[in-house]
Amino acid sequence: MDEHQRPVDPHLPATPPDLPSLSEDEWVAEMRKILGGEMPGVRLGVGDDAALVDAGDRLVILTADMLIEGVHFRLETISARDLGYKAIAVNVSDVAAMGGSPRYGLVSAAFPSHTDLGWLVELYGGIRDASAEYAMAVVGGDTSRADRVVLSVALTGEVTKAGAVTRAGARPGDRLVVTGALGASAGGLRLAEANAEEARRAIASDWGRHLLAAHVRPRARVGEGQTLAACGATAMMDISDGLALDLSRLCRESGVGAVVEQARVPVSPSLGPLAEVVPIDPMELALSGGEDYELLAAMPRDTVDLAASKLRDRFGTSLTEVGEIRAGDGVVIVEADGTERPLEPAGWDHFAS
Amino acid sequence: MDEHQRPVDPHLPATPPDLPSLSEDEWVAEMRKILGGEMPGVRLGVGDDAALVDAGDRLVILTADMLIEGVHFRLETISARDLGYKAIAVNVSDVAAMGGSPRYGLVSAAFPSHTDLGWLVELYGGIRDASAEYAMAVVGGDTSRADRVVLSVALTGEVTKAGAVTRAGARPGDRLVVTGALGASAGGLRLAEANAEEARRAIASDWGRHLLAAHVRPRARVGEGQTLAACGATAMMDISDGLALDLSRLCRESGVGAVVEQARVPVSPSLGPLAEVVPIDPMELALSGGEDYELLAAMPRDTVDLAASKLRDRFGTSLTEVGEIRAGDGVVIVEADGTERPLEPAGWDHFAS
Repeated sequence: MDEHQRPVDPHLPATPPDLPSLSEDEWVAEMRKILGGEMPGVRLGVGDDAALVDAGDRLVILTADMLIEGVHFRLETISARDLGYKAIAVNVSDVAAMGGSPRYGLVSAAFPSHTDLGWLVELYGGIRDASAEYAMAVVGGDTSRADRVVLSVALTGEVTKAGAVTRAGARPGDRLVVTGALGASAGGLRLAEANAEEARRAIASDWGRHLLAAHVRPRARVGEGQTLAACGATAMMDISDGLALDLSRLCRESGVGAVVEQARVPVSPSLGPLAEVVPIDPMELALSGGEDYELLAAMPRDTVDLAASKLRDRFGTSLTEVGEIRAGDGVVIVEADGTERPLEPAGWDHFAS
Repeated sequence: MDEHQRPVDPHLPATPPDLPSLSEDEWVAEMRKILGGEMPGVRLGVGDDAALVDAGDRLVILTADMLIEGVHFRLETISARDLGYKAIAVNVSDVAAMGGSPRYGLVSAAFPSHTDLGWLVELYGGIRDASAEYAMAVVGGDTSRADRVVLSVALTGEVTKAGAVTRAGARPGDRLVVTGALGASAGGLRLAEANAEEARRAIASDWGRHLLAAHVRPRARVGEGQTLAACGATAMMDISDGLALDLSRLCRESGVGAVVEQARVPVSPSLGPLAEVVPIDPMELALSGGEDYELLAAMPRDTVDLAASKLRDRFGTSLTEVGEIRAGDGVVIVEADGTERPLEPAGWDHFAS
């Protein structure tokens, strides 16, 4: 067959729009259409935190995330060890968001040929640190040269059929909860990139170190995700691109709307001192900063207190009610003075330049 | 904990060598040491075509391969559709090399923000083509922007416990066999990159089209791999980096040596006419060109004829004996005049610049 004279594929749109006019979410929707076709065994395909496929009495979770130098990180602001750790942790977070446990990882890494081997050894040391912490094993991958560092991780995980929680089950009346505090990772990034002398001194403070650690060593909420699932979470995801954008995704997949009470949003307390040395708005970072890797879940009202006490007792992790699921669509936020406004789904869009 | 003042890790070498002094294989050996620790359930980790993990009565195969613009392909010489197809096929080939069947894929793709959406739609059309051809499903992944196109694919597959064949089982006296013909993919690349007018005319010839198709649409030998496994292959791998380099890997993992008879190497017949318009040595491309994605296997002598007739009858694929496994180590090649020389493990090294 002559592959170079293929007829036009009737399944493909004749005049596709330009990429710059699409958001990442719109592209994911396009991609779902192109890849199409259901396969036996696939419980959940493209578009959630991870995919779910049948495996006997359990489900296998499959997820992948890429970190690209110059897009997701700069070598000046993250150590090789932290970068390796983070590449695993952000993938584990997607498994946690399904209520599962990570099992096996594949790490594909590309780096310039002038890369120092000591740096690479530290990178894989960080990968090993995270694998040990999350009780999983990196079993393979690929290595290549490139002109920038690229880390592409794929992970498998496991979850019982009853234990899996997707983005799609939230019901009107469910309470919206988030683990931990928000905005610290984005604050850490702002601090690392700040040039002022005052900001540089702040890196040595407790709050400065806390913000930087949140950015370079995010903790995946594996135990918390399983506990929320067991307590009856109806929908769950990790907050990787900011509460505002990620909540809009959860609502879209569940076919519901939501209201967020601004006064309840758990803003990282370390953002207060940061705002004195770097021009940031703590609430804006908490709503749209991204990379928090905390969990966002919808839960029946009568399950929240028990879930909160279990998270506090087992993991020392807070669980905060931030609002409620509503019928309809769209996400609104109620400000401190009671005014309600649409919560724009602003956040980290991987397609924006 | 202050992540930025971590003590030196006692498991890491104090003075690691420079990266440029390492081959890809040497780095894989380093990486195995760093990642270390065995995990229950892992049958085979870093270093083979793919990893094997326990899954009840079967084994799950896990593999990943990255294609990077400017390293593995140039946009001038491969269409989006072919690139998508190839990204899946080269991963399926790793599953085939274990004797397994592909199941689920994760595709992480990065591209410049000025990328034409029509190109992307064609890319995912090629991914869909390959998924359909190999009866597998792409269930997720990641998308990002980058300054070059990066395609990172991870694949799961399945194989029965009795059916899995690694690189490590070859025994002295086993015959060495390869499927199909070698060198066509490297020939296609040379042809695509040639500038001479004569070479450009050759692209329209049957042999020219055959070479180009071998390069941009390699076929993964899934059925052939399962048949070779069932016929008693003791070791198997796919030829992605050239027969010479890949055979040296199979021998190292099996703890054996090998002899290759040069006159038996199945050189792609399309390389003859290519050599008249582009300065290439067909035998050199067959031995070291890479990207053939044919299978290389070791088999007991009395199983080869049956395997060859099955491959011919079921798939129309040839199986050629090219030599034999020996005790000891090192690979030698016997030239047409009977002289024996070491077969240097030259081929595609992803670390070379």
